[in-house]
Amino acid sequence: MNDIRAELLTIGDEILYGQIVDTNSQWMSAELDKIGVRTIRKTSVGDNEADILQAVAEAESRADIILITGGLGPTNDDLTKPCLCKYFDSKLVMNEEALAELTALFEKRGRTLNERNRNQALLPDKCKKVTNSVGTAPGMWFDKNGKAFISMPGVPYEMKKMMEDIIIPEIRKRFPAPVILHQLVKTVGIPESILADRLEDWEKNLPNHIKLAYLPSLNQVKLRLTATGSEKSELEKDIQAQVDLLFPLIGEYIFATDDENLEALIGRMLKERNLTLAIAESCSGGFLSQLITSVAGSSAYYRGSIIPYHNDLKINNLGVKKETIEANGAVSEPTIIEMANQVRKMFGASIGVATSGIAGPAGGYPEKPVGTIWIAFADGERTITKKLQLTTDRHQNIYMTSVNALNLIRQSLSVND
Amino acid sequence: MNDIRAELLTIGDEILYGQIVDTNSQWMSAELDKIGVRTIRKTSVGDNEADILQAVAEAESRADIILITGGLGPTNDDLTKPCLCKYFDSKLVMNEEALAELTALFEKRGRTLNERNRNQALLPDKCKKVTNSVGTAPGMWFDKNGKAFISMPGVPYEMKKMMEDIIIPEIRKRFPAPVILHQLVKTVGIPESILADRLEDWEKNLPNHIKLAYLPSLNQVKLRLTATGSEKSELEKDIQAQVDLLFPLIGEYIFATDDENLEALIGRMLKERNLTLAIAESCSGGFLSQLITSVAGSSAYYRGSIIPYHNDLKINNLGVKKETIEANGAVSEPTIIEMANQVRKMFGASIGVATSGIAGPAGGYPEKPVGTIWIAFADGERTITKKLQLTTDRHQNIYMTSVNALNLIRQSLSVND
Repeated sequence: MNDIRAELLTIGDEILYGQIVDTNSQWMSAELDKIGVRTIRKTSVGDNEADILQAVAEAESRADIILITGGLGPTNDDLTKPCLCKYFDSKLVMNEEALAELTALFEKRGRTLNERNRNQALLPDKCKKVTNSVGTAPGMWFDKNGKAFISMPGVPYEMKKMMEDIIIPEIRKRFPAPVILHQLVKTVGIPESILADRLEDWEKNLPNHIKLAYLPSLNQVKLRLTATGSEKSELEKDIQAQVDLLFPLIGEYIFATDDENLEALIGRMLKERNLTLAIAESCSGGFLSQLITSVAGSSAYYRGSIIPYHNDLKINNLGVKKETIEANGAVSEPTIIEMANQVRKMFGASIGVATSGIAGPAGGYPEKPVGTIWIAFADGERTITKKLQLTTDRHQNIYMTSVNALNLIRQSLSVND
Repeated sequence: MNDIRAELLTIGDEILYGQIVDTNSQWMSAELDKIGVRTIRKTSVGDNEADILQAVAEAESRADIILITGGLGPTNDDLTKPCLCKYFDSKLVMNEEALAELTALFEKRGRTLNERNRNQALLPDKCKKVTNSVGTAPGMWFDKNGKAFISMPGVPYEMKKMMEDIIIPEIRKRFPAPVILHQLVKTVGIPESILADRLEDWEKNLPNHIKLAYLPSLNQVKLRLTATGSEKSELEKDIQAQVDLLFPLIGEYIFATDDENLEALIGRMLKERNLTLAIAESCSGGFLSQLITSVAGSSAYYRGSIIPYHNDLKINNLGVKKETIEANGAVSEPTIIEMANQVRKMFGASIGVATSGIAGPAGGYPEKPVGTIWIAFADGERTITKKLQLTTDRHQNIYMTSVNALNLIRQSLSVND
């Protein structure tokens, strides 16, 4: 059983200057993980020959597979190709197949190839071309002493297509890996240290081949169990046994034991119960709706939303009583109750959900400081409300309002189970 | 003039397994950049002693400042503290000030300190404590041969507060840096290679102390000019001269030369013109509205939205004519025209904007494949429509529909200038 080790190298001054978030390395390592290849290090360096060459050499000394993204564009600040030429003592030659692919791509897009684009078909003579079916820069695959060095464009869409279609299948063929199984157990609504206390004994009794990690984020803590071995079916049984032990300890906080996120879970719950959803969101400004509609197939249960940002819209277009708002304010329990019930009726949905609060940074006052938020769930029989006291950060408040609203839907639907 | 070099080390198996995106390193390097500290490398390693120690040693060999995040939690998989003890030949002692701060934090939250939390106040005797005012794990600052090693929690909110309040001011004091100025020129609607062709001569004539980079993303290409020198005012003049030369070449595609994003720009344009906005979005499902409302102060110009995901809502709640949808379908120019005009009237706004399309992955047919999208802008005098033919990817389609709608607003408002 081999331990296949990969390193990821992302290249670009824009990463070092902090002008973009490097999402490529996250995606690549998740894909490698699925096929049992262990990422042992991620490195980012700038558009600088010495740093690129040093990073490639260091990665070669530790890993079996080196994945490189970035620096393949048509402009002069892109150095990856010349650096790899130097590293592998290779020279640039016109790759006729790449040129033909490039020409076809441009024809399809109704554009003509300029010199700069033509040069993208120049490849080092010691590499194999990796076809880029959705962009202009081909990838490069170098082999050396049983190790693979693969260079891809930095544009996420192009890199992903290349990985999925060509590189992942090729890695599987060349590097048979040990079996590594991960199991996520996702919780919402319990702080990490309380969770750890509840799970202390359980954790101590974990078998040696199963490792535990806590992955905390805003409002949620994920537990990740990782089992390593040679027999997939054995590992699956071992992990399932541990997950079964978790439910009596923390079952009420667990919302998923798979990749499913909260918005997809809610979609599934609504569909299974033949229910539909309408949303009236004020302070969350569309964020909750876009979470719901980010799920493919959401039109099966999602009717629509209204975002009545101003009070006159809450009154005239959503039908909240003027007196309710005048007496209690827009950020209040009586108002949120009417919002949830009104949107439910107005859009003909089984369930109405509403948010109203002070997202900030301005707009707070002593009795209702920034971060005061009301959310509600109404299904025609019950109206369940919740008051949140969140932060002073606008983006966090919008995000956490939306996640809390999702969790309120989950809890309200679970009661009937 | 010193060149101050920083390296960032983010620690956690969850980063290597690809289960979270490392956004900390992006944020930290952007902050360092602002104070003239150059990030030369970013490294991520797992929760593994040997890898952590090796990465710290490598960083020490190259950089003046080493920023470390992650691995400070209360659970057993958190190894940063013991590793740094070993690296600096230090031992853990109870830091009474940290314990007092921790106790106060718990009291404020109405929780009691358990043993696991108490242990978070144990710190290596050779470090200075860095106060964590919003979380349980204090930071650590080690000094060695004029170099600074700073360890922070991995929770972004806690790390950022620590950086802003304590670490950045302290770095500025200890490491006076050369002047580095960045200037962004943001374009929308022109492909990178065409842009590069148009700018070829201009780029060749750039002075030596100004460097150019192309930062492409979906629908947008940013140009970044970086000037290095000793006199800030000189550099500002030099950069401004180059930006002035860009406008005659690509002015129509430039939407910003600062940090302002498209949604903030539109907010400013609307406010300056005393205009208000209402949105009817179907296929973009709330994404466009949440972009608009992500801007602090957006209530000054944003009235509200309706998301009529189903056709009966488009007809009954938004007032699109039934015949229009029956004759042309919901994804059509006649429908999008009515949507934009109706939402404008219904919500009493100066401007109505609408989106309708097939986001996918399902729901397409030969004449209207997945990715067929209509957007419209209506201001009472004009209705401007645009048809987009986007991708087969749901998330990309939602995102690009929203950015195209923002750009349509920008262009439509610019015409009057």
